[in-house]
Amino acid sequence: MMKTFNFQIKKELANGLGRAGVIHTPHGDIETPAFIVVGTKATVKALTPEQVSRLGVQAVLANTYHLYLEPGDELVAKAGGLQNFMNWHGPTFTDSGGFQVFSLGAAFGEGGLTKFAVGNTETQNDGRVDDSNHAKLAQIDDDGVTFRSHLDGSEHRLTPEKSIQIQHNLGADIIFAFDECTAPSADYDYQKKALARTHAWAERSLAEHQKLDGPQSLFGIVQGGRHQDLRQESAGFIGSLAFDGFGIGGSFDKDDMGTAVRWVCENLPKDKPRHLLGIGAVEDIFTGIENGADTFDCVAPTREARNGSLYTATGRININNAQYRQDFGPIEDGCGCYVCSPRLDGGVKFSRSYLAHLFRSKEMLAATLASIHNLYFFVNLVKKIRQSILDENFAEFKQEFLTRYKN
Amino acid sequence: MMKTFNFQIKKELANGLGRAGVIHTPHGDIETPAFIVVGTKATVKALTPEQVSRLGVQAVLANTYHLYLEPGDELVAKAGGLQNFMNWHGPTFTDSGGFQVFSLGAAFGEGGLTKFAVGNTETQNDGRVDDSNHAKLAQIDDDGVTFRSHLDGSEHRLTPEKSIQIQHNLGADIIFAFDECTAPSADYDYQKKALARTHAWAERSLAEHQKLDGPQSLFGIVQGGRHQDLRQESAGFIGSLAFDGFGIGGSFDKDDMGTAVRWVCENLPKDKPRHLLGIGAVEDIFTGIENGADTFDCVAPTREARNGSLYTATGRININNAQYRQDFGPIEDGCGCYVCSPRLDGGVKFSRSYLAHLFRSKEMLAATLASIHNLYFFVNLVKKIRQSILDENFAEFKQEFLTRYKN
Repeated sequence: MMKTFNFQIKKELANGLGRAGVIHTPHGDIETPAFIVVGTKATVKALTPEQVSRLGVQAVLANTYHLYLEPGDELVAKAGGLQNFMNWHGPTFTDSGGFQVFSLGAAFGEGGLTKFAVGNTETQNDGRVDDSNHAKLAQIDDDGVTFRSHLDGSEHRLTPEKSIQIQHNLGADIIFAFDECTAPSADYDYQKKALARTHAWAERSLAEHQKLDGPQSLFGIVQGGRHQDLRQESAGFIGSLAFDGFGIGGSFDKDDMGTAVRWVCENLPKDKPRHLLGIGAVEDIFTGIENGADTFDCVAPTREARNGSLYTATGRININNAQYRQDFGPIEDGCGCYVCSPRLDGGVKFSRSYLAHLFRSKEMLAATLASIHNLYFFVNLVKKIRQSILDENFAEFKQEFLTRYKN
Repeated sequence: MMKTFNFQIKKELANGLGRAGVIHTPHGDIETPAFIVVGTKATVKALTPEQVSRLGVQAVLANTYHLYLEPGDELVAKAGGLQNFMNWHGPTFTDSGGFQVFSLGAAFGEGGLTKFAVGNTETQNDGRVDDSNHAKLAQIDDDGVTFRSHLDGSEHRLTPEKSIQIQHNLGADIIFAFDECTAPSADYDYQKKALARTHAWAERSLAEHQKLDGPQSLFGIVQGGRHQDLRQESAGFIGSLAFDGFGIGGSFDKDDMGTAVRWVCENLPKDKPRHLLGIGAVEDIFTGIENGADTFDCVAPTREARNGSLYTATGRININNAQYRQDFGPIEDGCGCYVCSPRLDGGVKFSRSYLAHLFRSKEMLAATLASIHNLYFFVNLVKKIRQSILDENFAEFKQEFLTRYKN
């Protein structure tokens, strides 16, 4: 089937890694760098597709593991695919499900998930979490992974072929090869072994994808943990295969992230887009872009929104703090989001005081308004970074922004 | 202060009771009959004010008891009043808080609420519930009511004066006198005694309202349970006072409702609007309008929406039933709501299948979409009833509608 997918670079940073570009997909263009919003279960939590679109989101990433279990990928196919099912008509991504199999599936019966930091993001539930015991729990072998559903404990098996079949049923524009995401605590020998498996699975994912044909584009995933040689080897190998783009997977310590992304991007073909999986801390986005990542996804903006943690240019505020009850200003002066932008008469539309009331009252509108604000913050930040690349003042913009922003 | 409030009758039914009209308020007109949407805690649950407005809602009714406890009426006054606080700029109502004091407040410490049917609506939590033990639990006396907060058990006291002061702080366009809402199980003697108290409180509410002055309009509440003489006496007395309109309170058996509303409306001044409190079953709306009610409020459409019970022209469907998982049609063909109306390309925007998935996945968007649909159903039904009065074919429309609609 003919593909309308391609990637154009508009401007590069002086380091030859970071760039601004455009990804063309069958459902529209993504101007990169871009923050891809997570819609785990075929919905961006608490928002209608119109609200998502209106706040400036270009593309949505849904979750293969979750949608395979509920409502099932065949049902989504019958509904006309993910776009039709969720009424989101812009570009879409699905991840491969590997990450969730190793975390959510693996954790079943062990009473919960291991929490650790990816960038600055605590990951749980629908996030990108890892579990150092996954080998024992998820029953991984060279052919694939047997795991239990976190919903009902039923046993399932994912292989590279099965993941690609599911993702073809879901029908997103950009899909990912099935990979093994290792824990940061895994030792070098395990990382090396897992990487070999990820590479074999990448080839099998690609073969299955080519066999099934279709208008979708497949991204291969580079792994290798925190090890320079493994990252470079992985980028070289995955980069040599006929993928349409690449995902950069794995978990990093905050200090490692930029270095690891650089090792990878220096060894990937320049002319294909690169997606940094599950990264969403403000500093990490600057670092990721600077080192060659084109797109990102992260549940942090919406999850933190639901907890009342709201992003501003100087850092996050916790709207549950008592001081905001009597604060009649907007979340952030000058913010252009639906929540913060002034009314036609100049008045405050939704004050911090009102949001504090909604959170105290456990009203659903709290999550909706907070999610709109936080997503706008990220989408708009990445748009501004893109503009700074085009305007050749990325370094100045980064310094100016991070000087004000305290995590 | 000058009031812009008035009521014009455009057309009457042949029985001389039912009518179509317009209520003018400082924040806009309400074409009656009208379904007033409940926004208990200064938010229509799960919806932004724009979503509420776009689905055709003319006015919102908030809850005095809840807002007095959280965030506090003085805070709402500081925020510029209810409209400003919640960013709803159309007409607003607040009830007097009496009903919730007797139910939610009263029930504190007794491990829950008595449930019973008002019309067809099971009422709980933010609904209009009564408790036959309220005299013991809420410590009612002729001056007012002492009760405990359902949030933290703290002790509070409401009197007619205090209720009006709170409602002036909240600043809704239409506010209600403080009344005692009796249980249907209360005997005639108790009903008579409670009615005398409600009448004394009506006079005190009116005096406090006149003293405070302001742009708001005060509605007196007619009580009297299921007793013809008490209802007629109450309508005669409350109707003789200088209220801007009237509320019809109390709980009814389904069969009684129309008769009780008739007894009341036959004895109220014709030229002032009448609000039927907490009524929201489809048949009851027809009956209420036929017997002289101009406006209604009820939590049923949004509460049932959150449970997955969706209104259609032939009755409610429970979207959680397995049969809807593979149903790719809209909730209702031909429905003009945001959820059901087709996409520009003619496709289904949000299918029953997608809604079933959202409910199974406990996604917040489920409540949002279902609430939009159910509220549209009611708002639109009452609009059609209004048109049928103007077109002089109310009886035909009623028969046609209720022949198809099975509860």
